[in-house]
Amino acid sequence: MKTHNVLIDTKDEKGLVYKISKLFFEHDLNIISNNEFVDKENEKFFMRTVISGLVKEEQLYKELRELLGENANIRIALPEKKNIILMVTKESHCLGDILIRYEAGELHANILAVISNYDELGSLVEKFDIPYYHISHDGLDREAHEKQITEKLKSYKDLDLIVLAKYMRILTPSFVDTFSEKIINIHHSFLPAFIGANPYKQAFRRGVKIIGATAHFVNNDLDEGPIITQNTINVDHSFNWKEMQRAGRDVEKIVLSSALKFALEDRIFVYDNKTVIL
Amino acid sequence: MKTHNVLIDTKDEKGLVYKISKLFFEHDLNIISNNEFVDKENEKFFMRTVISGLVKEEQLYKELRELLGENANIRIALPEKKNIILMVTKESHCLGDILIRYEAGELHANILAVISNYDELGSLVEKFDIPYYHISHDGLDREAHEKQITEKLKSYKDLDLIVLAKYMRILTPSFVDTFSEKIINIHHSFLPAFIGANPYKQAFRRGVKIIGATAHFVNNDLDEGPIITQNTINVDHSFNWKEMQRAGRDVEKIVLSSALKFALEDRIFVYDNKTVIL
Amino acid sequence: MKTHNVLIDTKDEKGLVYKISKLFFEHDLNIISNNEFVDKENEKFFMRTVISGLVKEEQLYKELRELLGENANIRIALPEKKNIILMVTKESHCLGDILIRYEAGELHANILAVISNYDELGSLVEKFDIPYYHISHDGLDREAHEKQITEKLKSYKDLDLIVLAKYMRILTPSFVDTFSEKIINIHHSFLPAFIGANPYKQAFRRGVKIIGATAHFVNNDLDEGPIITQNTINVDHSFNWKEMQRAGRDVEKIVLSSALKFALEDRIFVYDNKTVIL
Amino acid sequence: MKTHNVLIDTKDEKGLVYKISKLFFEHDLNIISNNEFVDKENEKFFMRTVISGLVKEEQLYKELRELLGENANIRIALPEKKNIILMVTKESHCLGDILIRYEAGELHANILAVISNYDELGSLVEKFDIPYYHISHDGLDREAHEKQITEKLKSYKDLDLIVLAKYMRILTPSFVDTFSEKIINIHHSFLPAFIGANPYKQAFRRGVKIIGATAHFVNNDLDEGPIITQNTINVDHSFNWKEMQRAGRDVEKIVLSSALKFALEDRIFVYDNKTVIL
Repeated sequence: MKTHNVLIDTKDEKGLVYKISKLFFEHDLNIISNNEFVDKENEKFFMRTVISGLVKEEQLYKELRELLGENANIRIALPEKKNIILMVTKESHCLGDILIRYEAGELHANILAVISNYDELGSLVEKFDIPYYHISHDGLDREAHEKQITEKLKSYKDLDLIVLAKYMRILTPSFVDTFSEKIINIHHSFLPAFIGANPYKQAFRRGVKIIGATAHFVNNDLDEGPIITQNTINVDHSFNWKEMQRAGRDVEKIVLSSALKFALEDRIFVYDNKTVIL
Repeated sequence: MKTHNVLIDTKDEKGLVYKISKLFFEHDLNIISNNEFVDKENEKFFMRTVISGLVKEEQLYKELRELLGENANIRIALPEKKNIILMVTKESHCLGDILIRYEAGELHANILAVISNYDELGSLVEKFDIPYYHISHDGLDREAHEKQITEKLKSYKDLDLIVLAKYMRILTPSFVDTFSEKIINIHHSFLPAFIGANPYKQAFRRGVKIIGATAHFVNNDLDEGPIITQNTINVDHSFNWKEMQRAGRDVEKIVLSSALKFALEDRIFVYDNKTVIL
Repeated sequence: MKTHNVLIDTKDEKGLVYKISKLFFEHDLNIISNNEFVDKENEKFFMRTVISGLVKEEQLYKELRELLGENANIRIALPEKKNIILMVTKESHCLGDILIRYEAGELHANILAVISNYDELGSLVEKFDIPYYHISHDGLDREAHEKQITEKLKSYKDLDLIVLAKYMRILTPSFVDTFSEKIINIHHSFLPAFIGANPYKQAFRRGVKIIGATAHFVNNDLDEGPIITQNTINVDHSFNWKEMQRAGRDVEKIVLSSALKFALEDRIFVYDNKTVIL
Repeated sequence: MKTHNVLIDTKDEKGLVYKISKLFFEHDLNIISNNEFVDKENEKFFMRTVISGLVKEEQLYKELRELLGENANIRIALPEKKNIILMVTKESHCLGDILIRYEAGELHANILAVISNYDELGSLVEKFDIPYYHISHDGLDREAHEKQITEKLKSYKDLDLIVLAKYMRILTPSFVDTFSEKIINIHHSFLPAFIGANPYKQAFRRGVKIIGATAHFVNNDLDEGPIITQNTINVDHSFNWKEMQRAGRDVEKIVLSSALKFALEDRIFVYDNKTVIL
């Protein structure tokens, strides 16, 4: 039997669970799983319910809208594969991790294409029969370069998500706005430590005993978008910055793939520059 | 406003969330937090709801019972401090960790007493104005020794929980049955590895690269009760068994205190020799 | 300038560091890095030194042998790429992780071939221009099947290491003896917990709150060989065994790749069914 | 037999291990353990050796000095208990963790006194028969307050280490200089993230998925001294800042006690605003 994911976030008030579950009950829908969170400080209610049964999407949406009012955010989605495009530069560990999961049928997504400002990773991507577009920034200013990328991205209808799998260039506000809340990035530090360029060099210089990685949605403040997942590993004085970088790659790829999984499963709410993951 | 914890586990069926939340709504109760879990394989539904409002406990219980039938487990409890007794042998790290939290007002419990088969820890316990009973096993068989302990435990009415904070003797089935699902133990390995005596010596001999600790409810299979919390840390070849033991203490105390916190906050369901923690 | 790895393990006695470093000094060799470990209980000395300079391997070996006697283990090796063969069954996560590192030039090894008892992973391996041999066990007893595998393995001269990257069949003592201390396996549990088949099912049934993985050398006691690396991650009641398996894959692949790295860098001593890693 | 810790750091050059171990050998000293590290970038050599035998400290120091020259740092110390003073404000978790270890005989130190700017923790400290000095900052400027503290500290001869176990006031440069490289602090974040006041509030506002703690030597840049130990734990959207604070306490106390252990065992080198721990 088909399931649907229903994601609701709205102002908290008494009786929400009752009213929403009543509606599911009246539609003769079964609740497969149900998770809620209330941010008491901000009086905000979040609910993710997986329902099964004969879902009349439009009708259910209409009734939820009537119930919850204009200000509620309501998503009803079949758990279908999302369409994603990866952007990379030269490093293959995050890209490769995603490709191997894809090949194994474990990634709940269609990879439409990989775009890079270099050609280094083309031969890897093409092994997996995925189009690889080398859009060099050579001789182009940032806007001109992004214009070419945006055209390529827009040539794909129904693009759901852009995954920056170690794409090492800063994006312009205009680009970010065009794909608002659709871009996930992996940053190679435990943000907010070591924002910006060369975080491993920064970490080495500071003499930290842990390094980490952060997957986040991209907004227009560099490395300051809503954090989805983070993790860290221990290092010690014997790691120079290149060894930190090497060790960090294993954290980066797992953190990015975890964040991507949450996004592909419709489990993320973005709110107040944070994420709620149900 | 006073809150209550409501814990329900029962056979899963369609409409449970709706029916239960309807009942809360009709009683004009507010849902502060709500967590559910469905074990699909076993068709078992678990729900922990924190409600606020004018709770008429008996009436609410009666109506929940009518709604859910005789086979449902239903608990409605004020989040009051539980009465606990600690049992120890000679090591102070778990005991001390609990005492420091207690002294700081962070432990949601009344420590009625500490019982030990040795007198080593008496001076520590008495600093905190808690009765310490040294019940030696010298010259006693197991039953006779436990008889004395049981009498002491039973002299405290309203005892909610017995915490074995490194009590190093095996308990008889009779003792365990007397205090069924009321005994929490900390075992100094990541169970089910290294059941029984001297787990650090076993771990050292096996040459493991991680060691750990497990807090669990005690049943009549040695170290096989329902696991509440576990954690591990990395070790390497340079650790002999005494160094593993020393390093492991930090894991043991944090794992036990975490498990105790879950128990004191009425967050644990025991089912199928496992725990569900909501 | 070329470096050499020198690995020595021998009975501990006074003056070993002095005598060995004196020999390096007299050969006008520079010590790039030096790590030692003494197992005091067993009076055993381990030393791994990276030296640079004009190393006359035979002469150095001869003098070390004279210095340390017949019972010492002495290895002097250029840090050259080792020749490895991977054995797999159907799961691609460990294999894929190694292939991606290989493609990126990060794996200090030549992958000579991949051998599998199924054909599922052939198309993945062939993308990377590595020979894939499907040696089915269908209709064969264990000895006959292994005979075919052994022939294939022996057809490669200078094979240094066999990596069981989720090869799901038990090997016979005869096979293990043939490739003694040359076989690394990844087991999908934190050994010694959950030896044998279906560790995730065992873990689920036991209700553990951590799962893990163990890379070890293979000997003739099932899952009891010397442990190289282990790691764990947290799970909770919401994971069924398939979800544990899925989550565990990320631990397995990182643990295996870490163990492989140690082996490829000549950093492992095997002793008393344990490893010392310097 | 008595052991000594010998710590040497100096400019790296060929033959150091040989020359130093030769000297130990000529003094008929046995090497119990030996660890080295070479920072190649900065051409800096670090060595920590535990030796046993009849150590003539002055003679050995003199010969090491002749061997290594004026610029080498050389420490030869019996592994005796260090004298420490704790400074605290109102929170008891780090203090309590240290007191419990002290009471158990596990802390290799004499706690001479505890100094606080509040009186809250006096009753806890006095349970352990340790002098508690309440030196209030009420009505005093920073200099006047620190003058009183400094006088108290200086009244203890042979003070080796000051441990800021959640002392919540910023120290002046003058105070820090007076006790240069003798002050260890615990900061309640994974530095360099969340420098300064209220790191848990900062972490909550940023929406991080990990929190951590950092033990470091204090210098005159706020929270920028050499890091000794760090660790992190996972959090999620359900943690408000107070819950992060509560969860973080367990990390803080373990991180501080680990750093303290390294210091008490003479295992730390400070160099280039970093630590090398052997």
